[in-house]
Amino acid sequence: MTATAAERVQHQGLRAKIMSAEQAAEFVQHGMTLGIAGFTGAGYPKALPTAIAERAKAAHARGEEFKINMITGASTAPECDGVLAAANAVNFRNPFQSDPGIRNSINAGNIHYQDMHLSHVEQQIRNGFYGDIHVTIIEATGITADGKIIPSMGIGHNNEALKAAQKIIIEVNAKQNPLLETMHDVYFDIGTPPNRQPIPLVKPDDRIGSPYLECDLDKVVAVVLTDGFDRNSKFADPDENSKRIAAQIIDFFNHEVKAGRLPKNLLPLQSGVGNVANAVLAGLLDAPFDDLTGYTEVLQDGMLDLIIAGKMKSASATALSFSPDALQRFNDNIEFLRDKIVLRPMEITNNPELIRRLGVIGMNAMIEADIYGNVNSTHVMGTKMMNGIGGSGDFTRNAFFSFFVSPSVAKDGAISCIVPMVSHHDHTEHDVMFIVTEQGMADLRGKSPRQRAQLVINNCAHPDYRDMLNDYYARAEKAGGLHTPHILAEALSWHQRFVETGDMRIK
Amino acid sequence: MTATAAERVQHQGLRAKIMSAEQAAEFVQHGMTLGIAGFTGAGYPKALPTAIAERAKAAHARGEEFKINMITGASTAPECDGVLAAANAVNFRNPFQSDPGIRNSINAGNIHYQDMHLSHVEQQIRNGFYGDIHVTIIEATGITADGKIIPSMGIGHNNEALKAAQKIIIEVNAKQNPLLETMHDVYFDIGTPPNRQPIPLVKPDDRIGSPYLECDLDKVVAVVLTDGFDRNSKFADPDENSKRIAAQIIDFFNHEVKAGRLPKNLLPLQSGVGNVANAVLAGLLDAPFDDLTGYTEVLQDGMLDLIIAGKMKSASATALSFSPDALQRFNDNIEFLRDKIVLRPMEITNNPELIRRLGVIGMNAMIEADIYGNVNSTHVMGTKMMNGIGGSGDFTRNAFFSFFVSPSVAKDGAISCIVPMVSHHDHTEHDVMFIVTEQGMADLRGKSPRQRAQLVINNCAHPDYRDMLNDYYARAEKAGGLHTPHILAEALSWHQRFVETGDMRIK
Repeated sequence: MTATAAERVQHQGLRAKIMSAEQAAEFVQHGMTLGIAGFTGAGYPKALPTAIAERAKAAHARGEEFKINMITGASTAPECDGVLAAANAVNFRNPFQSDPGIRNSINAGNIHYQDMHLSHVEQQIRNGFYGDIHVTIIEATGITADGKIIPSMGIGHNNEALKAAQKIIIEVNAKQNPLLETMHDVYFDIGTPPNRQPIPLVKPDDRIGSPYLECDLDKVVAVVLTDGFDRNSKFADPDENSKRIAAQIIDFFNHEVKAGRLPKNLLPLQSGVGNVANAVLAGLLDAPFDDLTGYTEVLQDGMLDLIIAGKMKSASATALSFSPDALQRFNDNIEFLRDKIVLRPMEITNNPELIRRLGVIGMNAMIEADIYGNVNSTHVMGTKMMNGIGGSGDFTRNAFFSFFVSPSVAKDGAISCIVPMVSHHDHTEHDVMFIVTEQGMADLRGKSPRQRAQLVINNCAHPDYRDMLNDYYARAEKAGGLHTPHILAEALSWHQRFVETGDMRIK
Repeated sequence: MTATAAERVQHQGLRAKIMSAEQAAEFVQHGMTLGIAGFTGAGYPKALPTAIAERAKAAHARGEEFKINMITGASTAPECDGVLAAANAVNFRNPFQSDPGIRNSINAGNIHYQDMHLSHVEQQIRNGFYGDIHVTIIEATGITADGKIIPSMGIGHNNEALKAAQKIIIEVNAKQNPLLETMHDVYFDIGTPPNRQPIPLVKPDDRIGSPYLECDLDKVVAVVLTDGFDRNSKFADPDENSKRIAAQIIDFFNHEVKAGRLPKNLLPLQSGVGNVANAVLAGLLDAPFDDLTGYTEVLQDGMLDLIIAGKMKSASATALSFSPDALQRFNDNIEFLRDKIVLRPMEITNNPELIRRLGVIGMNAMIEADIYGNVNSTHVMGTKMMNGIGGSGDFTRNAFFSFFVSPSVAKDGAISCIVPMVSHHDHTEHDVMFIVTEQGMADLRGKSPRQRAQLVINNCAHPDYRDMLNDYYARAEKAGGLHTPHILAEALSWHQRFVETGDMRIK
């Protein structure tokens, strides 16, 4: 199964362009905007970022400027975001990150970060919102004799980043399983408004494009051979809180199926990244639903196990992001899996048209929710970026049902995840249908803000914070308008108290 | 042209159900949920609401409860929302309103109001999110011999409200122009997930359905004859501020056309309600763009005049909402207009799939924006509802370009429309591309929060507030994380100061 990386470059012209990462990095200059592959630690370039970081360090040592603007699919890994941040080589970064190094640089004001809906990325590249894309660097599993690119563990924004690029560098990674070939479905022709046609996808597993990425081969300036695994983060086993959250969502599904409002195999499932979202999928292993489908952004351990167990018949995603154990299960079962998993461009996985048409059930983690149903997915205490909104907005706004999940408290109870007003708004009261903590679920559909407040406080907040929330709400009702009662001078005081004392509770 | 209302009921079975509004109102009981037609003062029932309000008053006089839940298309008029609010006959209301009586009741805590994306309304009715729809009351221009309903000046949610209803009451209004017949396009079969097909609309003026509404005629319990005009609010003539806002947007269009990033006839235009948005369209009368198209929610005076002037070749909307003068122009030119204007269900006009496919240019008014590009469209000083989000979220999120417009100050300068943090979030930093005031425009695309703050403060804020904003921002940079600098204890203090002193400025 393992050809060497060089053997995987079947196209003769591209084989002639094989060079070292250091040589290829010479194409990258200060001030350039780079399209860089990578989506939740999958399919990012393994060698070029380090070589670019070395160029930046050398330039800085000479007293020269060297910073790039980087547009990725989503998060990458320490050997991509991490090394570039450590070399102080990044001026601007979008659309999503989760690397501690990049994060610290963003929050220290050293990197300009645009946190954006992932469905917008390819469209905005195509329409020139970021100016020229000077170099695009992607990872491939191989290149066919006729120059078609076999993608690796994710597609992300690669299709558009290749089309828009002035120069292209392809890393061919011998560690990526060659049986990934034909698991991808690249829809090329999304068109330019006002002359667009409907996207012809009507089932989660429809194939509407090509298994290969294509590009203008004359733009390929370098092919670099690599041999490294994707970043693999281990998931925590579902804890008691996660299991309680999962159980409530599954109870709700049961209820809706019995009422005839949801098919017996539910609707296509989307699950955000992280332990709690993963736990909900784990809970479905033992739930009485079969022939499930997935239409999600990142396929992680939980969904993989549903497919291997025969509970889920197919899943669509833009990237595969597994723990080391799950990667082993994926490779062990790839013959069984390869016609059940479809990897697509992120413009397709996250497309509002398709999410709404399919009636996806969206389940995403949050940092905090407020009593009126606004959700903060991104900011710690209002000012510091955690990771980003990712696809949570694409799915939440267009979902048939949208859930936000979190334990009710964090930091041993010093932080309440239910607050009077969220310190940053990523999903507004208009978008959020269900809030679920280990304490309970609030069904906010068809409710006014005041009705929502009662449900969120009484069903979702931790008992340690319930009296404080009720006290705030009762006083807010006397302070201003009664549509969305707030005490403006106090609405963000819980966060301020945490910043000052390390605890949202009044000591 | 004017048949009597009775002559407009061509179906014999329905003609036999003609009765007075008072008789028809007997079908409405306390606690019922009603689907009521109406969209921005167009096509709402003229007689039933008063008759229901009288029933409520009589019940209240007897010491009995009488309140209904009402789901409309959008805003109605004094003789619908107004009389029901005055009679204290409303328990719950969605998805949009703009009536002073309803607004006061909402802000006094007497009515539960759910402010929601208009594209979600029909889907959520269909899927039972509001429970049973006991009675639906619509207005029609007439009823054909085979029982098809000729809609009036708007469609809104009528298609779904009729399908979901247990009982139906149809008002036939002799004041509505019979030549409205065939101007509508009702797409019936949007399907149920996961078995939906693409919506086959690819041009703003495509016709994909029927010119008539249909319903189960056995459910029609009453036909009521009316003879009243729609509410007609006069627009203010564009003032200097509005003209300056319009000029900047048109300059931008010119720039993009020259750069080849926008077609010469632009892209389909959406314009929110209100004087400023209307002024932008008025500005296009003299701009060098021809063969314009409109894909909007409400077609108002500005777009009508573009069509009459031959600048716009076609427009799609869910309702026609005109000033008295514009209504006269509409009726005078209806033979010319009837193949250029298409009226559709709001589920189609506001559909994310179609807005994104067509590449609509969204232009919407706002109450305030903050320095990071978050927008408040709905709340006065964070707690009181003004009107609602309407379709602004549907269009903004999915638009090719999205603009938010407002004069930089209100109340003679006592309120800055650019604030440190908006007091309510309807459109987040992830969705807002351009903010335009009479002072200037901020292009927020591809910018970090700190980059956006510089643009919004320096380009858009009124000079009286610029120093205050710069001072806040400079101190915020020292207060916490540097991704989105804020001083949490002070972020909403401008609003608090206005509530306490009547002025956001420090005296």
